[in-house]
Amino acid sequence: MAVEIERKFLVNSMVFRDIASKKNYIKQGFLNSDKERVVRVRIKDTEGFLTVKGPSNAEGTTRFEWERPIPLQEAEALLLLCEDFIIEKYRYLIPVGKHTYEVDVFLGMNEGLVVAEVELQTETEHFEKPEWLGVEVTGIEKYYNSNLSSYPFQKWD
Amino acid sequence: MAVEIERKFLVNSMVFRDIASKKNYIKQGFLNSDKERVVRVRIKDTEGFLTVKGPSNAEGTTRFEWERPIPLQEAEALLLLCEDFIIEKYRYLIPVGKHTYEVDVFLGMNEGLVVAEVELQTETEHFEKPEWLGVEVTGIEKYYNSNLSSYPFQKWD
Repeated sequence: MAVEIERKFLVNSMVFRDIASKKNYIKQGFLNSDKERVVRVRIKDTEGFLTVKGPSNAEGTTRFEWERPIPLQEAEALLLLCEDFIIEKYRYLIPVGKHTYEVDVFLGMNEGLVVAEVELQTETEHFEKPEWLGVEVTGIEKYYNSNLSSYPFQKWD
Repeated sequence: MAVEIERKFLVNSMVFRDIASKKNYIKQGFLNSDKERVVRVRIKDTEGFLTVKGPSNAEGTTRFEWERPIPLQEAEALLLLCEDFIIEKYRYLIPVGKHTYEVDVFLGMNEGLVVAEVELQTETEHFEKPEWLGVEVTGIEKYYNSNLSSYPFQKWD
């Protein structure tokens, strides 16, 4: 159990790939995409995870998060029960100053969308903004992965 | 992961309590009560569990079920995120022939409802029906615990 504090940005250039420390393939679906009680099934390369997220605060920066590793085979079975579209993306880890940005390059029905997130210890903590970072989208619900599974980027106007 | 085969009945007398082999207190809520992908948080006495159930077959006898024990403190935290009413009940285990009936005596907003379930290995397996067993309600959705949390027995006509 933890409280997650995150800021989220669009990305205006792919140069971040040159300084990535890690790249993972992520496939995930939602057993509930209601923002009051998100239940996510995720496969990261060959590892499975089940995650529950509570409601966000008013600014969209902070929410309760609970996560457990589960066997890959069980994650595959649970993905079959998930709502709507399964999300697929490559996640790059990009060290920037004292923080590590997670940059998600979406595939499939969300191809074309690239989003960077940085996790903070407190809501007021300072963090460096690299030149490839675009406009902030923290708290904008259509960018939530739970919404990208029902209303994916390729269907946006 | 397992497929659960169950038959469910109302109960027409409380005599089953005299032959119970076990009695547990159960408190549970739902992170999703959609019958295609039920996500249940349960506390049984002092143990926590997270359970995912898939859709039932047409007869309502069989469904995919996945369950994991989780720490009590985490189950208490996840119950706070659940939908609508929290279900509370006493569960009695009643040995009858080669099977064990689970009889749920509901409390709170479902007080007055008593339901017996028997789990089978195959859909055609024979099982004894004790004299305290009432009408069968297998597959009737309003008796699903996931529905009792949103539309509890005390609100029925």
